[in-house]
Amino acid sequence: MSGYFDNAATTVMSEAAMDTYLRVSRTYWANPSSSHQGGKRAAAFLTEQRERAASLLGVDAKHIIFTGGATQSNDIILSSLLWRIRPQHYIASGAEHSSVLQWQGLLSHAGWRATLLDAPGGFVDPQSVGLALEMQTRLVSVMLVNNTLGTIQDVGAMVSVVRQYEKEQKSQPIHVHCDATQALGKISFDLRDLGVDSASFSAHKLHGPRGIGILYNTNQTIQSLSRGGGQEGGLRAGTEDLASIAAMVTAMEEAQSTVEKNLAHVTTLNERMRQLLDGPTILTPSANSSPYILTIALPPLPSEVAERMLDDLGFAVSAGSACSHNARQKGAKVHNALRLDPALSQSSIRISFSCDTSLKACEELASAINTLYRNHQ
Amino acid sequence: MSGYFDNAATTVMSEAAMDTYLRVSRTYWANPSSSHQGGKRAAAFLTEQRERAASLLGVDAKHIIFTGGATQSNDIILSSLLWRIRPQHYIASGAEHSSVLQWQGLLSHAGWRATLLDAPGGFVDPQSVGLALEMQTRLVSVMLVNNTLGTIQDVGAMVSVVRQYEKEQKSQPIHVHCDATQALGKISFDLRDLGVDSASFSAHKLHGPRGIGILYNTNQTIQSLSRGGGQEGGLRAGTEDLASIAAMVTAMEEAQSTVEKNLAHVTTLNERMRQLLDGPTILTPSANSSPYILTIALPPLPSEVAERMLDDLGFAVSAGSACSHNARQKGAKVHNALRLDPALSQSSIRISFSCDTSLKACEELASAINTLYRNHQ
Repeated sequence: MSGYFDNAATTVMSEAAMDTYLRVSRTYWANPSSSHQGGKRAAAFLTEQRERAASLLGVDAKHIIFTGGATQSNDIILSSLLWRIRPQHYIASGAEHSSVLQWQGLLSHAGWRATLLDAPGGFVDPQSVGLALEMQTRLVSVMLVNNTLGTIQDVGAMVSVVRQYEKEQKSQPIHVHCDATQALGKISFDLRDLGVDSASFSAHKLHGPRGIGILYNTNQTIQSLSRGGGQEGGLRAGTEDLASIAAMVTAMEEAQSTVEKNLAHVTTLNERMRQLLDGPTILTPSANSSPYILTIALPPLPSEVAERMLDDLGFAVSAGSACSHNARQKGAKVHNALRLDPALSQSSIRISFSCDTSLKACEELASAINTLYRNHQ
Repeated sequence: MSGYFDNAATTVMSEAAMDTYLRVSRTYWANPSSSHQGGKRAAAFLTEQRERAASLLGVDAKHIIFTGGATQSNDIILSSLLWRIRPQHYIASGAEHSSVLQWQGLLSHAGWRATLLDAPGGFVDPQSVGLALEMQTRLVSVMLVNNTLGTIQDVGAMVSVVRQYEKEQKSQPIHVHCDATQALGKISFDLRDLGVDSASFSAHKLHGPRGIGILYNTNQTIQSLSRGGGQEGGLRAGTEDLASIAAMVTAMEEAQSTVEKNLAHVTTLNERMRQLLDGPTILTPSANSSPYILTIALPPLPSEVAERMLDDLGFAVSAGSACSHNARQKGAKVHNALRLDPALSQSSIRISFSCDTSLKACEELASAINTLYRNHQ
């Protein structure tokens, strides 16, 4: 595990989160929708977890929806457009995660128009949001930390542009959604300051369990396609997975209590890598980026080859975001939206750190990459 | 826990399933979509789990999709209709779980017509399916074991009616979906013999974890609304929850190895309850029903009152399916579709057993119900 540099794809579940999972599976195992005492205890426990999650995010508990992960959180917001009486227009960054981008297919099938904004170097220009807005725009979706490059976008500025447009044009309300999956537990942010209407999170990116996440949502007009048994305010159906929810909250608490310390540690790792790398092109800008992600390019070595050669040496890095491996073409589209030089794009690898990554492992990886690069010039 | 009679709502996770969850969380924690060695090991483990699940269900591994639970499995099939070029017609039993019934809202918004069939006494008449079929019908959805009454429907006969119609009328193919959530691990069934195109399952109904389930699907034209990162054949997006998947397979294996023994035990419990109950009306027919569910009525006591009074005595039963508590009106609609006498419907409670339920607890519950009934005549 010392050579694991793919923490943006997933992290190992913490022992504390596993302990919580077991404890809750044994204690609060009744269905929170049941009205007998076991069910009521489970429902009360669910309420408590919602309040703890809300407190960690600095928001109101009524705006916390527990989902199956960030993909489902994104799905709920994007798919809700299908409930609108007539198809209109939405805006997304072309560098979003595939779980946002893929909705273009069905939404355009249903008559919706999309404007996909470029994010040169990993940043959507807030002014480009302003230029794309029109009276029919119902949704703007932008991510906080880009999963490909690690850039931290100025989401607050984009929200300001949208709010100013609403005010000046007296437009219908425009929902601003933010995929904050790569931010939670890693960098500090304030959802209320950002002013977004909704945001998505996944537990497994911060040492929590798989299959669980959060949708923060303040917009009462959002309707889910699937209401099922009416759980989670009708937005996410299915018997609530209390053990995973509580384990996620444990992981969030662990992350929050160490966020500054971990940020300092990972910043040291990131800076050391940047110092040591000799030859490869560094694609992640040093300003306004999460130190947890460092994307570099080793031209002319193709990403997949570099990834495999490093893997043979015991280093796990990513040739792209793991989520796009099943859909490589989409990965290429994202790289286009990031306006990466094609030669660099095709030879890029993503290195991603966690609080558990050691300086020694980073130094070894940098040395391995330098050798690899030199041997292929 | 000895007084827990709400196993159709949820069951406690088995210790073996918890052991698997922990072992897999520690061992196969990389992202199966990652192409480094850890990711490949995780992907191979996922393949192995899929093959084991398929073998337990007696089907081909390529037809097993891991989902977030039966609600999501149902969602994938029902929502796929939205991809059709033009809205047409579908048929469902009016006694389906709310996760199927609720799709009528969005589908009718999109122009689809639905025929909801009554299931008098818990059984849809296969001939009524035949009468409802039309050239525009694209989907028929019927459940195997009814979650309200425990009746086992003759799904095979319904499939035959559909196939005969397809052949005689030379109609377009009609997809037959079956929610088999209350059947898995409890009664024996053969998906291939039934001839359904798809079926849904949830792990937490058979002592597995929450938040995980299966969609069995043989129909290549089914498309999910959410393709996300392309996981699970593009039908269920999101990083695969290997720990929960493996824990579910463990629970399925435990259930399969003891299915006959447990069925005999629960049949004894069910028959003993039927013998002992003196006064209440038994709504679950003794023939063609799962012994795991026994629904009775205590008129004139309202369901909620009977449930609460039994709860005070330490017995957890359900005033309906747990999933409909957030949507009580839907529960009433299901009772209408079951053609239950309104007086009996309003005073019905569902008793549901598990392999862990003791005969002694059943005798105590029967005695408590008899007293309750007598005291309120």
